[in-house]
Amino acid sequence: MKLLQGLRVVEGTAFVAAPLAGMTLAQMGADVIRFDRLQGGLDHHRWPVTKDGASLFWAGLNKGKRSLAVDVSKPEGQEIVTALITAPGPDAGVFLTNLRVRGWMDYDALRRRRADLIMLSVLGTREGGPAVDYTINPAVGFPHATGPEGSTEPVAHTLPAWDCITGQMAALGILAAERHRRMTGVGQQLEIALKDVALAMLGNLGILGEVAVNDVDRPKYGNALYGAYGQDFATADGRRIMVVALTDRQWRGLLSTTGMAEAIDDLGRRLGLNLALEGDRFTARREITAMLGPWFAERTVDDFAPSFDKSGVTWSIFRSFKQAAEQDPDLSEAHPMFSLLDQPGIGPYLVPGTPFASSVSERTPARPASTLGQHSEEILADVLGLGGAEIGRLFDAGVVAGPRR
Amino acid sequence: MKLLQGLRVVEGTAFVAAPLAGMTLAQMGADVIRFDRLQGGLDHHRWPVTKDGASLFWAGLNKGKRSLAVDVSKPEGQEIVTALITAPGPDAGVFLTNLRVRGWMDYDALRRRRADLIMLSVLGTREGGPAVDYTINPAVGFPHATGPEGSTEPVAHTLPAWDCITGQMAALGILAAERHRRMTGVGQQLEIALKDVALAMLGNLGILGEVAVNDVDRPKYGNALYGAYGQDFATADGRRIMVVALTDRQWRGLLSTTGMAEAIDDLGRRLGLNLALEGDRFTARREITAMLGPWFAERTVDDFAPSFDKSGVTWSIFRSFKQAAEQDPDLSEAHPMFSLLDQPGIGPYLVPGTPFASSVSERTPARPASTLGQHSEEILADVLGLGGAEIGRLFDAGVVAGPRR
Repeated sequence: MKLLQGLRVVEGTAFVAAPLAGMTLAQMGADVIRFDRLQGGLDHHRWPVTKDGASLFWAGLNKGKRSLAVDVSKPEGQEIVTALITAPGPDAGVFLTNLRVRGWMDYDALRRRRADLIMLSVLGTREGGPAVDYTINPAVGFPHATGPEGSTEPVAHTLPAWDCITGQMAALGILAAERHRRMTGVGQQLEIALKDVALAMLGNLGILGEVAVNDVDRPKYGNALYGAYGQDFATADGRRIMVVALTDRQWRGLLSTTGMAEAIDDLGRRLGLNLALEGDRFTARREITAMLGPWFAERTVDDFAPSFDKSGVTWSIFRSFKQAAEQDPDLSEAHPMFSLLDQPGIGPYLVPGTPFASSVSERTPARPASTLGQHSEEILADVLGLGGAEIGRLFDAGVVAGPRR
Repeated sequence: MKLLQGLRVVEGTAFVAAPLAGMTLAQMGADVIRFDRLQGGLDHHRWPVTKDGASLFWAGLNKGKRSLAVDVSKPEGQEIVTALITAPGPDAGVFLTNLRVRGWMDYDALRRRRADLIMLSVLGTREGGPAVDYTINPAVGFPHATGPEGSTEPVAHTLPAWDCITGQMAALGILAAERHRRMTGVGQQLEIALKDVALAMLGNLGILGEVAVNDVDRPKYGNALYGAYGQDFATADGRRIMVVALTDRQWRGLLSTTGMAEAIDDLGRRLGLNLALEGDRFTARREITAMLGPWFAERTVDDFAPSFDKSGVTWSIFRSFKQAAEQDPDLSEAHPMFSLLDQPGIGPYLVPGTPFASSVSERTPARPASTLGQHSEEILADVLGLGGAEIGRLFDAGVVAGPRR
């Protein structure tokens, strides 16, 4: 039995966070039904796309969902979506969306059809204003603290981190509300705003405290880890590596494999610092790096990799996306998370399933993203219990559509 | 009633992801009991710290948990932790940890005491090897795709994004396993590795497809948004802003407020591109930016902010952490997510609660992180049902400790 066997979520979403939430639940075994306009949703052609214009982005965020193509500008389309969202059963009645929807998809309107409805909306700002990952990130301060030491140029992130975090929280919110409903019989409307997630994380990571209590505006530290020892180094074979010594064990492993223990003891004495402490290592990071730099510059990755791995040193090689795809043995079917999957319209490529490994549920192979309207007919029949004639009429009237052939 | 009222999670964790998971659940209403060595956990002094050495990092990631200080090198300490983890009741029997623990805290050992135990371990790599956010990020490719266009220097991120994402997923995994147990009576061991989360996200965001299907190794695009139009601009008052036009609505809002609609039409014709399409806007981003740049350079933020906000343009100002704390009205008690909270050992500062807004549970104010051992006595009494004499003996024998006075 899959982890979330039975749970049904109806999804009407766009952007990254909300579709990611639905996909996360689908990959854990929920039945996620995504509805879209007949011509496809906002993101249906979002980059990256193949040379034929098929969206790799779309395929990535909609794996394992069922697809209903429905014209919600028509009253009959609205009724179908309303009936889906408010379908009976303890495992149904969960709606995942983006907007603070008004009108027929409003929480109060839907609740008249199912009093214990759970509706989770992923917003930009808590007021429902427009904000996306790439506007929130500059506003909360990370680009100012990213990039080469001494530079004043802000560096925006490439990973839509706030989207990814919020997406997982949205999935979490749905399970929390579903647990609450199971206990109390009471449904609820939950909202989570991308910007609030970013603001909360500023606090959770101690950054708000650093400003308020220490009056410190954290500057750029290049590729150095903040608060302990972590640094990038060039190697003799032209590569760049990252070494992190956060814990005592990691630090001692680094010193013993590089043979630097004694020299570092001397350094600590010279600087009047206790380099057994993380913070003191951060304070002395330039001096430590000056000592380790030549060591790495004289060695190739192959020279030190075996001893580093043996001693549990925490390190990695900087790779481009392509180098990672080609060189990391985990980015292959040797990793049970991945399947070589034939995505309709795109072709076969390596696709991830859920990162969770469970002692009771087998890992299920990744499933492709559905083509638009692929499950329209079966959803109307199985979930709404409509007969063949009625379904035919809805198709003929252009209220719903099946996949293009 | 709080969202996760009743759920009890016992936490023995370090680093970012796993403590964040526990705190997320605590802020949603779960009773999270964190146990630590008598001298405090690995992160008890992690930076940022106040001038007195109190960890703002620690306080940030451990809000709202109860604290038990216990010497697990002693058999009696091990027995206390085992009894806590395996305490009876449908809402208990959930253990959140980091390591693939062996010995007395091993899943199979604990399961002998409670057959339906749920144990979730946050790992570095799936094999249990050492890996942290700052070594995983270089290995999967993001630093190579971050920073100024044309540069070959990798730029590591400052936000521990993989930790933050994995932490939310760990919380999600616990609720999924708890739902599964409620349905089936069966507990389970779940593992989630930071590195697997990063690898899966490479696939989810279409990056693996871009490499495999398109044979494209995404380069650095500076602060430009990939795949649609988004760019940073300097303004006449010396500020830097970010403007994003991902959807049609966002794009039209930007063109109408800047009065560029006609000029952009001409540009599209000249370039033979359809700038109504996201991808074509990305292709023409340099030319678009060349047209918009002078417009922003001649205006202060105050000049365009009202019309931008009125038209729903998606934009923001680049701020440092301190500027954000000082200038963003959401970073104050005007936002119901935040409380000005007196954190013992640190003092009063602005602290976030859960980002979720619920229609049925009131937002509860943020709670401080516990001091080490603050709840040792009450946990032994209330959860384990030990009597006063026995508790006194355990304190006297140094098996457990209360807060330092």
